[in-house]
Amino acid sequence: MPAQSTTDKLHIGLLGAGRIGRVHARTLAYHLPQAHLAAVADICPQAAQQVAAEFGIPAAYGDPRRILDDSAVDAVVICTSTDTHAALIEAAAEAGKHIFCEKPIALDLQAIARALATVDGAGVKLQIGFNRRFDPNFQAVHEAVASGRIGTPHILRITSRDPQPPPISYVKVSGGIFLDMSIHDFDMARFLMESEVVEVHATGAVLVDPAIGEAGDVDTALVTLRFANGALGSIDNSRQAVYGYDQRVEVFGSRGMIAVGNETPHRATLSDAQGTHEALPLFFFVERYTAAYIAEMRAFVECILHGSAPSVTGRDGLIPVVMGYAALKSLREGRPVKLSEIA
Amino acid sequence: MPAQSTTDKLHIGLLGAGRIGRVHARTLAYHLPQAHLAAVADICPQAAQQVAAEFGIPAAYGDPRRILDDSAVDAVVICTSTDTHAALIEAAAEAGKHIFCEKPIALDLQAIARALATVDGAGVKLQIGFNRRFDPNFQAVHEAVASGRIGTPHILRITSRDPQPPPISYVKVSGGIFLDMSIHDFDMARFLMESEVVEVHATGAVLVDPAIGEAGDVDTALVTLRFANGALGSIDNSRQAVYGYDQRVEVFGSRGMIAVGNETPHRATLSDAQGTHEALPLFFFVERYTAAYIAEMRAFVECILHGSAPSVTGRDGLIPVVMGYAALKSLREGRPVKLSEIA
Amino acid sequence: MPAQSTTDKLHIGLLGAGRIGRVHARTLAYHLPQAHLAAVADICPQAAQQVAAEFGIPAAYGDPRRILDDSAVDAVVICTSTDTHAALIEAAAEAGKHIFCEKPIALDLQAIARALATVDGAGVKLQIGFNRRFDPNFQAVHEAVASGRIGTPHILRITSRDPQPPPISYVKVSGGIFLDMSIHDFDMARFLMESEVVEVHATGAVLVDPAIGEAGDVDTALVTLRFANGALGSIDNSRQAVYGYDQRVEVFGSRGMIAVGNETPHRATLSDAQGTHEALPLFFFVERYTAAYIAEMRAFVECILHGSAPSVTGRDGLIPVVMGYAALKSLREGRPVKLSEIA
Amino acid sequence: MPAQSTTDKLHIGLLGAGRIGRVHARTLAYHLPQAHLAAVADICPQAAQQVAAEFGIPAAYGDPRRILDDSAVDAVVICTSTDTHAALIEAAAEAGKHIFCEKPIALDLQAIARALATVDGAGVKLQIGFNRRFDPNFQAVHEAVASGRIGTPHILRITSRDPQPPPISYVKVSGGIFLDMSIHDFDMARFLMESEVVEVHATGAVLVDPAIGEAGDVDTALVTLRFANGALGSIDNSRQAVYGYDQRVEVFGSRGMIAVGNETPHRATLSDAQGTHEALPLFFFVERYTAAYIAEMRAFVECILHGSAPSVTGRDGLIPVVMGYAALKSLREGRPVKLSEIA
Repeated sequence: MPAQSTTDKLHIGLLGAGRIGRVHARTLAYHLPQAHLAAVADICPQAAQQVAAEFGIPAAYGDPRRILDDSAVDAVVICTSTDTHAALIEAAAEAGKHIFCEKPIALDLQAIARALATVDGAGVKLQIGFNRRFDPNFQAVHEAVASGRIGTPHILRITSRDPQPPPISYVKVSGGIFLDMSIHDFDMARFLMESEVVEVHATGAVLVDPAIGEAGDVDTALVTLRFANGALGSIDNSRQAVYGYDQRVEVFGSRGMIAVGNETPHRATLSDAQGTHEALPLFFFVERYTAAYIAEMRAFVECILHGSAPSVTGRDGLIPVVMGYAALKSLREGRPVKLSEIA
Repeated sequence: MPAQSTTDKLHIGLLGAGRIGRVHARTLAYHLPQAHLAAVADICPQAAQQVAAEFGIPAAYGDPRRILDDSAVDAVVICTSTDTHAALIEAAAEAGKHIFCEKPIALDLQAIARALATVDGAGVKLQIGFNRRFDPNFQAVHEAVASGRIGTPHILRITSRDPQPPPISYVKVSGGIFLDMSIHDFDMARFLMESEVVEVHATGAVLVDPAIGEAGDVDTALVTLRFANGALGSIDNSRQAVYGYDQRVEVFGSRGMIAVGNETPHRATLSDAQGTHEALPLFFFVERYTAAYIAEMRAFVECILHGSAPSVTGRDGLIPVVMGYAALKSLREGRPVKLSEIA
Repeated sequence: MPAQSTTDKLHIGLLGAGRIGRVHARTLAYHLPQAHLAAVADICPQAAQQVAAEFGIPAAYGDPRRILDDSAVDAVVICTSTDTHAALIEAAAEAGKHIFCEKPIALDLQAIARALATVDGAGVKLQIGFNRRFDPNFQAVHEAVASGRIGTPHILRITSRDPQPPPISYVKVSGGIFLDMSIHDFDMARFLMESEVVEVHATGAVLVDPAIGEAGDVDTALVTLRFANGALGSIDNSRQAVYGYDQRVEVFGSRGMIAVGNETPHRATLSDAQGTHEALPLFFFVERYTAAYIAEMRAFVECILHGSAPSVTGRDGLIPVVMGYAALKSLREGRPVKLSEIA
Repeated sequence: MPAQSTTDKLHIGLLGAGRIGRVHARTLAYHLPQAHLAAVADICPQAAQQVAAEFGIPAAYGDPRRILDDSAVDAVVICTSTDTHAALIEAAAEAGKHIFCEKPIALDLQAIARALATVDGAGVKLQIGFNRRFDPNFQAVHEAVASGRIGTPHILRITSRDPQPPPISYVKVSGGIFLDMSIHDFDMARFLMESEVVEVHATGAVLVDPAIGEAGDVDTALVTLRFANGALGSIDNSRQAVYGYDQRVEVFGSRGMIAVGNETPHRATLSDAQGTHEALPLFFFVERYTAAYIAEMRAFVECILHGSAPSVTGRDGLIPVVMGYAALKSLREGRPVKLSEIA
């Protein structure tokens, strides 16, 4: 957009040019006129250059330091591998940059604590990438609960199933299903119920692929949550739903129930001699959460421009990891585990 | 139906003229031409006479013995209060009558064992009143699972919520939510998954009415099941859904998912300036399971006339009670409980 | 029901023991305790005897006169072939019997006029078998319109498609698609809109089976209605919907819209790698309108017992036939036809 | 996007900076990297400047000639008022620019003919803005029909209702409901059925607002179509559906039916003591057809860059206008009108 000066825009540096990095690059390039994507860095310089070319980013680096040292950059979007998140958060905070970081902050609770302390000390803003909070469906659920339309929440049900399992190599470093996959549902539980989880009971099984079991993980899980306000929650996860990405939520309360089904690419219904047929859900997170990815980045940009608080805080990044460890401990010990037992 | 002889029909005696007794009386009087409702007995003779008058039953008694001693009676339908079931089953078996008995057989596992042993010894047929197995919706789920259309079952989800809680006086003698309400879901779990449950973990809360808590019970519950075949299950119960009787089931498997929603009185949809509105679910079990009550009684009559095995056996009556006690123990001890720990 | 006297019941004679006769026999035998099915007559005595045996009817005749001459009979249900309806109505009225008659009263407008005049003169009640008015779905639509919930009706849409065409032999004597099939929709239009149709424009095509065209009929039709109150209506008919009996209605008004979809045998939804699949609609009218057939007969019995007016009158039987002739004339002349041009 | 050269992009000039002009400006600025929005012109220069500022367009003019005379401009997008379309098409074609033009080309059939002849003579591409063809829902319907999945089409049903009527001042110059509103449905009919309409029968009424009638128009209409292949079609229109923009289509054929319902902002369902409630449809065309507007512009850009034929041709722009005049004539003369009677 050559006619428009970039000087009054928020200048953003992108750290990480992988799949999710490209999602955010597209949002910043095409959907947020108030943001200017000034530079991209990736451990693989060619990947950075490719993203720069595709989305018209003026600078591409191999070293993220180049971005952190650039005084024209206001904020960074961290999309690198999980093991680098905490250190990059700390470095960015020390450089005075506002931070958007993909979940999880880290798999190590100490590392998370250090990163959050550094952010606090630096006085920069930090938003964690729990994108599902920005999905119009889950926002409608949140609004129905928060407005009191269903009364006091009693039971939360979340179904969250992926269309296909990740590669075994990824499973091995992922931290396991609870820290990699259920973590989104743990965040959703806190977001929707507006009450903290105090106890977790997890069961799991290896039903999709024995190799996942050999890697020390489970591929099917049921997690029961007990909330501080007395409500109960149930999450079911599977690494493979053959009909596609299954993302449903239901909150049942004293005055009613709010529930959301899956999004489909269209609303056409075919009736033939065999039955009535509808389309499968949108395939996976990139398709399913397109609007949510844009909305979360808009919220990040606006919280900086408007000087408001981030809508998904560092603490929101911490607690689901604690829940993940509680679930893991529960699975291993065959008993409910209180969150106070962790960390 | 005066023109048709009753001699070639199955002669049935009804024990208990309360609400569920009247449901079965109606079925036997109007929907099963091959059955003849020969007599009704109730501890309150007026109730027996009233049902006799309403449904054209030739004989009404205060004492069930009168029916058991009648050699023209082939079978009995037991709809009395739960505490009398086991003794009536034994007496009927000893009298050589085939038996349909409402659930549960008893709250005492020894009493159930004795009753089943007596039935076995007498060689009569016994069918337990788990009517939901005969609902067209749950039959469609069962058929999809049994036929392999969804592959190997991985996750079972059951939502089962009543429109309103029973009187506190009933809560006190009901055996609690797991033995009174969840017991239907425990049966459904076994029916649909065709695998036995080996472990139960129950959580509960008092969120609907404090008086239920004072009576020593919970009104909201989440039960996690682990099946012998490795699958997992989750049941949620509430004593009060303000939108009505909520009876949904979902089985997720390696090749797909089968799910059923609620039945409504009609399929009309109203769109106005506020939104799109559909009817509430059918109010409660009498409305919701009308077809199922007829189908289960037909199955009972036909299994006798055709000499086939009952579709819901004495053992099917026993196991859900064992599951109920396991759930109760789990709730009290705050840990998963194996069924092998009970009885 | 031997214990109950038949003397205080409404004694009914069934004329015609074919498919629809058997539907009504079942209703009267099993679902309406206040009615006694006293006799059945059919031009084929064996058919009458068979129905008598199946439903416990005390008397079976070959000649309907036997029933009309029986002073113990209060009312008749006419289910014979269409060409006999008018004469039987006249004979029954002259015999002082109340009359339920299947639609249409006759294909000849003069014959209808004579029959209605005779009924009026005799002071007996006459109800026409437009069963769909008693379907819970269409009743919900009617209620929404009548109560003003959708405001002033502007547009009516009816989709009415059969699962398969009748035999060509039947097509030839049926009076054509408008008098045989659309007639139900013509009645529905008047029932729902509570306004008379003043003009009809019909188009048609032979798309299902050329033999239907050779028989002088069409198998696919679109009929536009103009109502006295200014509202517009559109009906589409097909003799063959491969996905089953398609019976939908929608009324759009100044304050909203009410619409009904099809009924299915269950609410199960299967999701697999190909899509999400639901059951086909209930196959045909016997399955689809089971509850409606019972409700219409109950209404007939009760209007006699309670001395109230029939809910579907002789005039309601006449007008749809007039509309059928208007549609036929419109189709032939390729122009809209006013009802005032007919008869 | 400063890093990317604009030299290899398609340079586009926007004619008209009103509501729909802004929709296309947004698409060209943010969603089509292969296009460069080089200039905007509007009869009101301030409007042009405002759109230029908002979307980073380098040049803004009051006179469209400035764009037509710019040799760096490859194509124009015409979003001016309808009465200027034909002249601008001719001028653009003579200037050698490819043309995207909003519907309708003109209300005067001679003017359309001249414009199309000029385009043909100039050898430039012309795409007409029938955006609904690019909606994912209607594309799914088209695909089901075109692929033969529903067999031979027999009946088309289109429901197309606006959430609110336009200002009376607009109604007066709009050409009437058939040329302003139904024209989209006429195009949809041709698109989906892949057969030309040969005859139209229109009925109409003034039920929404008497002022519309005083302006010589109707606000409620039913149009029956007869296709060359023998199929039948029915379109219903209303200027005001209080529940929002109602855009549904159904094609019924020899092997099945394909139907689409409305899009809603989310899939949340609220159940409370009154019923089950879903969201209203997306409000109006800007919200409902967001994806379709982007897809049609992408198709236009790509047909130029790839040298392929436009997917919505000048003839596709002409025929619906002819159908509009046939409908108007039918309404006035109270009879079906053949398209061959027009022009």
